[in-house]
Amino acid sequence: MSSNPTVTLYPLVNYTFGTKEAQPEEDPSVAARLQRLQNDYEMTGMRRTVEGVLVVHEHNHPHVLMLQIANSFFKLPGDYLKPGEDEIEGLQARLDERLAPVTSTYNSNNTSSHQDWQIGECLSVWWRPNFETFMYPYIPAHVTKPKEQKKIFLVHLPEQKILSVPKNMKLLAVPLFELYDNAQRYGPQLSAIPHLLSRFNFIYEK
Amino acid sequence: MSSNPTVTLYPLVNYTFGTKEAQPEEDPSVAARLQRLQNDYEMTGMRRTVEGVLVVHEHNHPHVLMLQIANSFFKLPGDYLKPGEDEIEGLQARLDERLAPVTSTYNSNNTSSHQDWQIGECLSVWWRPNFETFMYPYIPAHVTKPKEQKKIFLVHLPEQKILSVPKNMKLLAVPLFELYDNAQRYGPQLSAIPHLLSRFNFIYEK
Repeated sequence: MSSNPTVTLYPLVNYTFGTKEAQPEEDPSVAARLQRLQNDYEMTGMRRTVEGVLVVHEHNHPHVLMLQIANSFFKLPGDYLKPGEDEIEGLQARLDERLAPVTSTYNSNNTSSHQDWQIGECLSVWWRPNFETFMYPYIPAHVTKPKEQKKIFLVHLPEQKILSVPKNMKLLAVPLFELYDNAQRYGPQLSAIPHLLSRFNFIYEK
Repeated sequence: MSSNPTVTLYPLVNYTFGTKEAQPEEDPSVAARLQRLQNDYEMTGMRRTVEGVLVVHEHNHPHVLMLQIANSFFKLPGDYLKPGEDEIEGLQARLDERLAPVTSTYNSNNTSSHQDWQIGECLSVWWRPNFETFMYPYIPAHVTKPKEQKKIFLVHLPEQKILSVPKNMKLLAVPLFELYDNAQRYGPQLSAIPHLLSRFNFIYEK
């Protein structure tokens, strides 16, 4: 129980990056996003969001794969789930949608599937108490009905993989030392990833 | 693997706090502490430190038990290990030394033991690359011989317990909302505890 789980990391060069069609943001503004959150909440209750931390290494230092939208903000791959959707299968589907190569229609023996994504340990859970931008890694006092729960999972990458990135995004490998103590640039959720990964015993494969 | 471990928390009032003899700091200054770290390193290599996060609740919000020294800095119970000492048994011994009631010499049937402390999950691991105050939740690039490793463990408290606090210290129950985003007051290690605890599913017992 008290041991440190071992995770094997592979070099960034093992992964092949392509592009695919743009995936525009669902909402045109933060205000629109919060309004839709509220509309959805009234229909189906608390939103559940899942995101994945994909880790590679360069020179034996862990790097997290992050999406950058329009040269500005950063986010992890993942998105919100449908009501009742399983969080692991849902995260696999969201990773596929965001990062899997587009399957050729000629590929009749289509074996690409969610199963390629090995979802590992839950790293952190964030809560949105109100229809506002603030989230916390706990349910604040006196909040009985949070409006969104976001779970962040470690994703165990295979030795090699082809990833396809929507044209309106970049996929960046951000080193832990860049994220650490850098909430100003990456926000409270992403800048905490070094803390959350520190309990893992990383093996750096060549 | 992806589920969130359940941890039962009991109210602060379940615990009884007494005092015992002062336990002065081993080193009179930060400089002296770093000098001893260096001396010890030359004798026995990297220092290994273990600390415990003891969690209770008040009004269904988690609070972490922290020692405050001389009305100034905060620290978790725990200390460095002897060379070769097991980290779990070592943490149990350090918690006993710091927080267990002094055993009466008349108690011939002395069954008090380390076993009372149930050491749980590793929450984070910190590294000191040099004989300096800075620590990081990863081994910085190009550092091959870190000087200290600190592991922070969740300690599962029983429903009730008597704790004895050295007279030169206070034991405070600090709520997560006070720690969160408060590195200025609590430093990078303690202010990250809310992130590290967020993956646990807390049950609040009455």
